[in-house]
Amino acid sequence: MAQLQQKLELALVNLDKPTLRSTLDEYHFADIGQALAEFEPKEALPLISMFSLGDRAKVFSYLPPYLQADVAGLMKRHKLAALFSRMDADERADLYNDLDEEQRAMVLPGLAQAEREDLRKLSSYAEGTAGAIMTSDYATLKEHWLVSRALKQLRLEAPDKETIYQTYVIDGQRRLRGTVSLRELILASPDTQVRELMRTEVVSVTVEESQEQAAKQIRHYDLLALPVVDEVQKLVGIVTYDDAMDAAVEEATEDAQKSASVGKLDETVDRVSIWELYRKRVMWLVLLVFGAMFSGAGIAHFEDTIASHVALVFFLPLLIGSGGNAGSQAAALMVRALATGEVDKNDWSKLFARELLVGLALGLTMAAAVYSVGVFRGGPDVAMIVSMSMIIIVLVGSLVGLSLPFLLNKMKMDPATASGPLVATIADVSGVLVYFGLASMVLGL
Amino acid sequence: MAQLQQKLELALVNLDKPTLRSTLDEYHFADIGQALAEFEPKEALPLISMFSLGDRAKVFSYLPPYLQADVAGLMKRHKLAALFSRMDADERADLYNDLDEEQRAMVLPGLAQAEREDLRKLSSYAEGTAGAIMTSDYATLKEHWLVSRALKQLRLEAPDKETIYQTYVIDGQRRLRGTVSLRELILASPDTQVRELMRTEVVSVTVEESQEQAAKQIRHYDLLALPVVDEVQKLVGIVTYDDAMDAAVEEATEDAQKSASVGKLDETVDRVSIWELYRKRVMWLVLLVFGAMFSGAGIAHFEDTIASHVALVFFLPLLIGSGGNAGSQAAALMVRALATGEVDKNDWSKLFARELLVGLALGLTMAAAVYSVGVFRGGPDVAMIVSMSMIIIVLVGSLVGLSLPFLLNKMKMDPATASGPLVATIADVSGVLVYFGLASMVLGL
Repeated sequence: MAQLQQKLELALVNLDKPTLRSTLDEYHFADIGQALAEFEPKEALPLISMFSLGDRAKVFSYLPPYLQADVAGLMKRHKLAALFSRMDADERADLYNDLDEEQRAMVLPGLAQAEREDLRKLSSYAEGTAGAIMTSDYATLKEHWLVSRALKQLRLEAPDKETIYQTYVIDGQRRLRGTVSLRELILASPDTQVRELMRTEVVSVTVEESQEQAAKQIRHYDLLALPVVDEVQKLVGIVTYDDAMDAAVEEATEDAQKSASVGKLDETVDRVSIWELYRKRVMWLVLLVFGAMFSGAGIAHFEDTIASHVALVFFLPLLIGSGGNAGSQAAALMVRALATGEVDKNDWSKLFARELLVGLALGLTMAAAVYSVGVFRGGPDVAMIVSMSMIIIVLVGSLVGLSLPFLLNKMKMDPATASGPLVATIADVSGVLVYFGLASMVLGL
Repeated sequence: MAQLQQKLELALVNLDKPTLRSTLDEYHFADIGQALAEFEPKEALPLISMFSLGDRAKVFSYLPPYLQADVAGLMKRHKLAALFSRMDADERADLYNDLDEEQRAMVLPGLAQAEREDLRKLSSYAEGTAGAIMTSDYATLKEHWLVSRALKQLRLEAPDKETIYQTYVIDGQRRLRGTVSLRELILASPDTQVRELMRTEVVSVTVEESQEQAAKQIRHYDLLALPVVDEVQKLVGIVTYDDAMDAAVEEATEDAQKSASVGKLDETVDRVSIWELYRKRVMWLVLLVFGAMFSGAGIAHFEDTIASHVALVFFLPLLIGSGGNAGSQAAALMVRALATGEVDKNDWSKLFARELLVGLALGLTMAAAVYSVGVFRGGPDVAMIVSMSMIIIVLVGSLVGLSLPFLLNKMKMDPATASGPLVATIADVSGVLVYFGLASMVLGL
């Protein structure tokens, strides 16, 4: 990588086209895009300008989004329009959404009518939907075509389509009738009709469905691409496996952040602004502080018990921490299982029964672990209080952690909102009440 | 889905082949496999036996692994061997690994010599490596072939290869020379040599590299399949995008579980045994209880302070909780960014500097949020102690949470071990010390 960057640096200083173009023999477009990300926009522009238009569009599509927008901002109108025409339809639409009003107005007149309409349509879908990650560069066939005609057509269209390996059979109203793979076409005799080859049990999503749902379908059915239809079942685009994979990884990142009570970030964590990072973290932290005040109120209620047995405080972090930890475990297991579809909302009661057993076993083990410490620090009475509390707290924490994601799901909220910190805060409150409540009873206060 | 299951049920009761086979016109193999998962192994066997051998192999490959092994255990030797021959090489190897010694010995003699060797080799790679998820069903070409010959060859091999859309050019020693896509072959003139078409900047992994690494390469370069080579650069297999996608999702699940201090489960959470679930959770819980005893020790040290100002305990859960929450946020952000490659180990100092600012801002906000509660519950002195503590605790928690994943990475451990519960436990200890230490000083105890 360092070597590639050095080559780019040299090419930039000497405006050396041959050297620059020779990098294409050694490196993949993705690597060149990544290496260019280290350059300033005003350095990246002359560099990519030295590539031929086709190569330039490919390299450009591998630049990170922020750099694409910055470089586009420096380009002359006709150059930018030429680049736009050569980009893949879905990437073009993403870039368009990242441009400001003025840049958009600048780029539109340079495009052909059809491209303009395609761009307007593709860039209109809300972020996170299948429509927003689909492309309109797909290949279509007709039912009555012979295989020979279909192959000829695909050969003609191949340079402009994102994939020709999976093709879509449509009727006169562009309604999706079936799918045929290139493999099937190649293996069939040339005078077979497409109708005889196509699979009619077609899986599809609508433009409004989530990209998460699209990625799930692609993964479940091992698809190369998933057709996207509008409300009247007309084919409007396809989501390709590579974009689905990116969507699945992004989704996992978002869930990982939510599970620690961080809101969705607009950018990767190394590029996001400090203000944005603060904003997406502070909301939950403040909410949780007010949640924790219920624990404080519980403690205030038992102030006399605590005053007369200060040794009890020794066990407070340990007990409420254990409930929170067991609850975080259960919540994380459920959030992820709901996200991947391993379990669904109907499985709650079955899983609750299992968690009852597991939580009890965990609580008993933990109680045993702290019993002797209890004896040592506070005598047999305190040891008993601590052990009993531990069993109840771990069990309650586990059951709350398990159930909260299902509850959120039922309330049409993202189960991932059942974050470790949220579950821990709830477990804390119950922990305080159980522990000091039990202590008041046993110690007769 | 309920409808499909009903159809299968009917077909089972009446041993009705036509009905069963008709499900293939309406449903995808993946759905039939999923529906069969609800049947007992001894019901699933007669059902899949009614399919033709080719369809049976496909349906079978979509059964969950535990059911595959159970059904295989009920099959007659020659039937199982026939099924084995028709399965994809990588799925066959996975099943083989799930069989017991006796079943393995039973299935091997029924296979052709070449299949046996292929099976032995593929099943020998350690779980989690690229070797373990690769397939040996890939298409190869020679440099000197003409495009016409290459296409003819691919047409012949198509039925047995996992993909013919990406092909691999090898020399006499099976060393990888380049790659050609079917799209490029179709677009080229028939008398072009493969040599002229192939891309030589080939990305590959070795059999021993992690499947996570293979998935990352596939995602970075938008590949359909990634070649896998042995130590002398001989091509031994390919990892296809669908298996890479599964690997990426599994990896994310494992990280999500680790981030809540749950060990790697052998099975999905709805199928794993209660004992296994207990075992994978209890270890960390017990370790963390002993970690929490340091907090207890800190409290014991300040027992006099607490005894004379019991009101201080009110703020304990709230303060230590906030440190843990802020730390969990920072840790989750870093663990995920390290996993996706958004940041690497050299970025620590830059990110630490940012976190210093963000943590300080968060601490100040939180301090402001609790100040008035402090005044109300304990007067201006307590309010000042609580606010000052909050700033320090949130800042320390954030910096610990940010740094721990990097430290683990440096120690060649998985950064995901820096779980929310672990970070919270460490933050608790420092929180207790800061809070009561400050209180002792200010209150002059």
